[in-house]
Amino acid sequence: MAEVQERLEAEDLQQNLREVQELLRRQKVVEGLVGRQDMPKHDLVEQLVHKQHLAELRAKLDRLHPADIAHILEGLPPEERLVVWDLVKADRDGEILVEVSEAVRESLIASMDSKELVAAAETLEADELADIAGDLPPAVIEEVVRSLSAEEREQLRAALSFPEGSVGALMDFEYVTVRADVTLEAATRYLRRLDELPSHTDQLFVVDRREVLKGTLPLARLIVTDLDRDVAQVLVEESVRFRPEDRAEDAASAFERYDLVSAPVVDQAGRLMGRLTVDAVVDYIRQASAESQLAEGGLSQEEDVFASVIDAFKNRWAWLAVNLVTAFIASRVIGAFEGSIAQLVALAALMPIVAGIGGNSGNQTTTMIVRALALGQIQGTYWKKLLGREIGVALLNGAVWGTLLGAIAYAFYGSVALGGVMALAMILNLVLAALMGVGIPWLRARLGRDPAAGSSVLLTAVTDSGGFFIFLGLATLFLL
Amino acid sequence: MAEVQERLEAEDLQQNLREVQELLRRQKVVEGLVGRQDMPKHDLVEQLVHKQHLAELRAKLDRLHPADIAHILEGLPPEERLVVWDLVKADRDGEILVEVSEAVRESLIASMDSKELVAAAETLEADELADIAGDLPPAVIEEVVRSLSAEEREQLRAALSFPEGSVGALMDFEYVTVRADVTLEAATRYLRRLDELPSHTDQLFVVDRREVLKGTLPLARLIVTDLDRDVAQVLVEESVRFRPEDRAEDAASAFERYDLVSAPVVDQAGRLMGRLTVDAVVDYIRQASAESQLAEGGLSQEEDVFASVIDAFKNRWAWLAVNLVTAFIASRVIGAFEGSIAQLVALAALMPIVAGIGGNSGNQTTTMIVRALALGQIQGTYWKKLLGREIGVALLNGAVWGTLLGAIAYAFYGSVALGGVMALAMILNLVLAALMGVGIPWLRARLGRDPAAGSSVLLTAVTDSGGFFIFLGLATLFLL
Repeated sequence: MAEVQERLEAEDLQQNLREVQELLRRQKVVEGLVGRQDMPKHDLVEQLVHKQHLAELRAKLDRLHPADIAHILEGLPPEERLVVWDLVKADRDGEILVEVSEAVRESLIASMDSKELVAAAETLEADELADIAGDLPPAVIEEVVRSLSAEEREQLRAALSFPEGSVGALMDFEYVTVRADVTLEAATRYLRRLDELPSHTDQLFVVDRREVLKGTLPLARLIVTDLDRDVAQVLVEESVRFRPEDRAEDAASAFERYDLVSAPVVDQAGRLMGRLTVDAVVDYIRQASAESQLAEGGLSQEEDVFASVIDAFKNRWAWLAVNLVTAFIASRVIGAFEGSIAQLVALAALMPIVAGIGGNSGNQTTTMIVRALALGQIQGTYWKKLLGREIGVALLNGAVWGTLLGAIAYAFYGSVALGGVMALAMILNLVLAALMGVGIPWLRARLGRDPAAGSSVLLTAVTDSGGFFIFLGLATLFLL
Repeated sequence: MAEVQERLEAEDLQQNLREVQELLRRQKVVEGLVGRQDMPKHDLVEQLVHKQHLAELRAKLDRLHPADIAHILEGLPPEERLVVWDLVKADRDGEILVEVSEAVRESLIASMDSKELVAAAETLEADELADIAGDLPPAVIEEVVRSLSAEEREQLRAALSFPEGSVGALMDFEYVTVRADVTLEAATRYLRRLDELPSHTDQLFVVDRREVLKGTLPLARLIVTDLDRDVAQVLVEESVRFRPEDRAEDAASAFERYDLVSAPVVDQAGRLMGRLTVDAVVDYIRQASAESQLAEGGLSQEEDVFASVIDAFKNRWAWLAVNLVTAFIASRVIGAFEGSIAQLVALAALMPIVAGIGGNSGNQTTTMIVRALALGQIQGTYWKKLLGREIGVALLNGAVWGTLLGAIAYAFYGSVALGGVMALAMILNLVLAALMGVGIPWLRARLGRDPAAGSSVLLTAVTDSGGFFIFLGLATLFLL
């Protein structure tokens, strides 16, 4: 745990990756020369240069923080990644596996045999082991579990028993407890006997004989308070505590609101089970934000930049398939009006505008509502007000953009009636978009589902098909 | 700073908001009764009830953490928000203004006169003042600055001089410094004389006579080390430090990689200027992720859920205008092929499928690349490889979905040639989408711009117009 490694700033981090790549490139040139038939195969000089590059690289890696090695591994294509991975000291494999992204972790684990995997896994704490357990072969996990103490085994079981996205899945088990009836002097002496405090120890957890949490003792308070006093006199009783089944999202929001560094996790009886720290919360926030970014962009999961064409296809096909279905439905709506389009071909050129603006406007509504829901700002009775407001915005948007587009349609096609149909269709599709933009997240929230997931796809499907139907339908009624 | 307020968990937070709403509702009923003509205007009982509700609400608010009051204010419509705001004790106005979202802050500030604003602003630290300075009237800021000490004025100047998104804009000035040549014993005695340590003090900053940073002394190390030793012997020299002009995004990534709680900010000469803490970093991460979410959804900025129709329109019109222009261009592309559509009206029904799938596939590519760029995983020479891979994925996608759609087109319209054109157009538009999906973020990154912003709009514009052009063009060539 002693932090002897270099810490890098952003440019240095990129610089590092470039240096490793340069070392690998030179290495490759050497290997290329050694491999060529016209060169003496055991040319001593070449071999030395070869070894020297590898040694230089190895020395560089030894100095780096595991998170930075992880960053380098993620930035290298598969073959070079494995060259670097082999150079990393075996006793650091575990901590690096915890740091890399899931896609890269899979590729690294695939290159290791079970003995190496067991050795790597045994260097980890129970909570870290739980994080990568899903990617390890069952035989490896079994063997590692056998080597754990009863306490660690219990911790691993606890960490694995809570679903992703819960506090239990994020908690660790490295905390320092004290009793309420000792003096601060005694508590300080006890701490001094420890070699070092677990990282992110900004407070000690005060527990009774049965491990029930009585409160916390912030180090900042311990340091400035008279040592004669008892822990009981200075402990903070009302400190935030979590239950392992709490949603990680709620815990993250509490960490943000109350600027926490660590917080105890307790069971139903109030017994201390673990600890949640701000670094786990930061990782969670980043992860959750990455996932929503990926989902919005239509990727099923984080994609290794160097994944093969097939792997990339697998990660993307589901979204495209969904899109194909909705596009097909919209296409059939248009198909139903082919007779009208044949009579007035201008409709074909104008219809995508009506559909597109509807989709965009509806997405604005949904985005606003999903944000407000996530921040807990919408209560039961406000949904109606919101819907009213959104329909108001839709009518205003419709009046502004509908008039503009109606005028443009008139300018291009010289038909007042066509311009009028265009304007009316815009207004109606914007109102439909507002209804759906409020209705879809409302329904998903009522059904207890994540209001964000898939809202945009569903909404665009409705505003596309709906937009085509409204515009072509109105045109058929009034123009033909 | 003493933390006497309640800390709430997620359900309690919602519960709280509901309680406040209930109190406000009852309050309103009473006011309604008092206001009615057929009731005695000064009915004592009613007045008492009225006052009692307000007193209850005020007592409730006094117990809450400023972040939770901010949450309640954000969850209330404008009139009720101001009722609650008036009940908050004046000496807490400042800390709450720092916590609320910008939209709500504006509405609260608009309801206060300059005297109240000056009083609220004077309760804030220099870094907090800098955060809300943009929303305060200049006259108020002038008056507050006059009341600051020279040191605070310098801090405020420093905090305001760095642009949003830089470390300088996030740093605070509450840190504890020690000299390297004192013993830990002396350092501990010095700390004990302080009333309390600034929040997030996990380490002391070790500086020399000229305030040049020599290293840091983690509290966790101070607590477990023999007090006879000198600070110089135990300080951490290689601790991460930032410069105020560093990008906040890079600092956030360093906090994440190295699990930091606080880090010193130094100037060019290595002199200590301020401190960056994990709570500011968490706020930044949340803010940045919210902004990208809003931008993707087509909102210019965070929108107050209770904003008026006009305010909502203002926040949304720019995006819709951009979209209108791109939709109009696509419409003109279709317009150029009206002759072809008139001859073969099936084209009108099929063309949105080609355009839509292209846009979705291109967005997948862009999302993947923007993520990888943000994580620093793409180096100079990998762009070409990436482009090759993406074109490979496009061809595979084209083969799969193109064949499927070609078959469907054939099934509906009975024309093999139409099916073939459909399949070919799909493949070509997917390749175009891959070129743009890689090319747009590449170009933006090369020009030093944020590769994410606007990539999706630009990409969809190209794949829409391009998709229509490719499909209708091929149809004109081969089918008519």
